[in-house]
Amino acid sequence: MTKYQLAPMFFALSDPTRFAVVERLCRGGASVSELQRPFKMATPTFLRHLQILEEAGLVHSEKNGRVRTVALRGKSLVAVEKWAAHLRREAEARLDRLEDYIKTKED
Amino acid sequence: MTKYQLAPMFFALSDPTRFAVVERLCRGGASVSELQRPFKMATPTFLRHLQILEEAGLVHSEKNGRVRTVALRGKSLVAVEKWAAHLRREAEARLDRLEDYIKTKED
Repeated sequence: MTKYQLAPMFFALSDPTRFAVVERLCRGGASVSELQRPFKMATPTFLRHLQILEEAGLVHSEKNGRVRTVALRGKSLVAVEKWAAHLRREAEARLDRLEDYIKTKED
Repeated sequence: MTKYQLAPMFFALSDPTRFAVVERLCRGGASVSELQRPFKMATPTFLRHLQILEEAGLVHSEKNGRVRTVALRGKSLVAVEKWAAHLRREAEARLDRLEDYIKTKED
């Protein structure tokens, strides 16, 4: 997964409703009405949030009869994790090199 | 760091300019003009992007004379990484339990 696909994920996660839905889904899939229950918002507004999450690749949904079930795409979170870890490691390596350099000067 | 502080970080990272600035900064701090160079945009627009990054806690900046230097806050990326890892682990643990349950049924 390239960095270009991370931007829609970050946008999707920047909203408190969508963030809460993602956290709820890590405990297992749920129907749309089950997911909507804790939120005081109109169904079309809530469905729009789910659409943004689905377009970002964070969740996928499936319709069985009249019930739509939503589940987390675990791999998308792995992409976020890997990206943050990669940047952190690069930044740490740079600090280590700086420390080594300072030590050389002190000797 | 609580989950409430993650939302502004995710919003800050959802823009391609700001995302690129964060990736650039993991290779070391830079002056504002150095950071702005690759982008074809007016200075006030670019400064607004930096402000969003700074308010989200992803970067910090310091003015020395006439030059403002920007650097990454490594800890903020650790927060993103930990959050994604935590959710992934929860989702994986749930899958493991499901697998165990299926095996019990098969025995």
